[in-house]
Amino acid sequence: MELWYTERQTDGVALSCKVIQTLHSEQTPFQRLDVIETASYGRMLVLDGMVQTTEVDEFVYHEMIVHVAMQTHPQPRRVAVVGGGDGGAVREVLKYRSVESVKLIEIDERVVAASRRFFPQLSQGLDDPRVECLFADGIRHIQENKGAYDVIIVDSTEPVGPAVGLFSRNFYVSCYESLTDHGVLVAQTESPFFNRDLIEKAFAAISSVFPVSRLYLASIPTYPSGLWSFSLGSKRRDPLEVTPNLDGIPTRYYTEGVHHAAFQLPRFVQEIVAKATKGGE
Amino acid sequence: MELWYTERQTDGVALSCKVIQTLHSEQTPFQRLDVIETASYGRMLVLDGMVQTTEVDEFVYHEMIVHVAMQTHPQPRRVAVVGGGDGGAVREVLKYRSVESVKLIEIDERVVAASRRFFPQLSQGLDDPRVECLFADGIRHIQENKGAYDVIIVDSTEPVGPAVGLFSRNFYVSCYESLTDHGVLVAQTESPFFNRDLIEKAFAAISSVFPVSRLYLASIPTYPSGLWSFSLGSKRRDPLEVTPNLDGIPTRYYTEGVHHAAFQLPRFVQEIVAKATKGGE
Repeated sequence: MELWYTERQTDGVALSCKVIQTLHSEQTPFQRLDVIETASYGRMLVLDGMVQTTEVDEFVYHEMIVHVAMQTHPQPRRVAVVGGGDGGAVREVLKYRSVESVKLIEIDERVVAASRRFFPQLSQGLDDPRVECLFADGIRHIQENKGAYDVIIVDSTEPVGPAVGLFSRNFYVSCYESLTDHGVLVAQTESPFFNRDLIEKAFAAISSVFPVSRLYLASIPTYPSGLWSFSLGSKRRDPLEVTPNLDGIPTRYYTEGVHHAAFQLPRFVQEIVAKATKGGE
Repeated sequence: MELWYTERQTDGVALSCKVIQTLHSEQTPFQRLDVIETASYGRMLVLDGMVQTTEVDEFVYHEMIVHVAMQTHPQPRRVAVVGGGDGGAVREVLKYRSVESVKLIEIDERVVAASRRFFPQLSQGLDDPRVECLFADGIRHIQENKGAYDVIIVDSTEPVGPAVGLFSRNFYVSCYESLTDHGVLVAQTESPFFNRDLIEKAFAAISSVFPVSRLYLASIPTYPSGLWSFSLGSKRRDPLEVTPNLDGIPTRYYTEGVHHAAFQLPRFVQEIVAKATKGGE
């Protein structure tokens, strides 16, 4: 018998992966959590029926949500990861020697527990002495910690359930206030093929709060359409003017060339950005 | 009742699309041909159970297989499209005023007939007086036409059945001989996530034949992994040194920025290229 896991990514599109075995399933206070072992993508973390991360392609997402922002800040010392309970983003942040403290603010403690048990490659960094895991509401935490962070990484699920507020202008204002002088915010903002309205709304909000705002892209096979967007807000430096320094920072996707290429948007994505910023920059 | 079409893209991954209706099915002398209308991607051309093109995302593939090569040639006048019976590549080629003649060499006449009937957006250019459709073996045609073309575009299916020979070094040697002095060859070479061996082999062959060879990428949602590679061989100009001129050439994906960004490979793809060229360039 063949077992397949199918995610209905949109109303009319589904991605299926052949399953070797189900490793874990539970209903947490916040969501349904499954860990499966797939034939092509290795172990896969699934929340409320949506693929969050897989062993095979997680490097793209985690490198791209972390390094672009970290390189845009001149010397990131204090970093917050909102969501990201699998630990993959924290692992990338810890590659920077300038980093003194990383706060992981994850609302669902069970995600961290599952990652520690089933995804050591992702969660390995969580025991680093610089890391503190807070099982709390990220929105409230950011509101209550003004001027606390150099970089905030919003590694959220899709904007359903507890993640809805993470895509609101109010939250981005809190992020601005929680950031230091050269502070940088980055958030995952879904697929330009399937979520144009969301990107437009989120990017418009970030652009209205931060003096510098940029959208960039990366290719993530297990996410809907395979093309994913990230929105970055910066108080000072423009990521386009950065020369990344990767000394001692091993990567499999991100390079200096990829940093700049990621901001060269296809015309149909440029149009989403232009609409979000009403044609002005 | 809901109908879904499922393509098993690899042994362990499948992409499914909700189907509104089946418009056409036939067994041609070369392959099984289906045209379906899907909810998310519009009309879809399926050959031997593999998605060839869809109304919604065809612009990415056709712009990216055509414009990078066309812009790399200083003045393309005579162009060959090998395969590409849907007409999408021809449509893009015809956007260049320098073009005097386009030969479409498609082995399966039924693909062109189906495209004319069901994909007017793709096949519209086939009636242009500059276009000639030859229903013939592309390998033999290229062998027999030395010095005939400025640009050769290999818009093939996957390397199974009649397309196998289109990925061989012998064919690339024929292409070299069929090209004029500044000639440029481009070929689709599958997904860097799923087809590393194929890319390595095809790119190694092209690199051994052409003085300039470059791999580049584009995001195509309905192709396996969503990330697709193209291999370019050039007799003279390096695509990296080109400043694209898009005057009078409308696009939805390709821009000057995208041209250059497409060659900025993620590190894991750089490694495939390095292996293909044994670390040297």
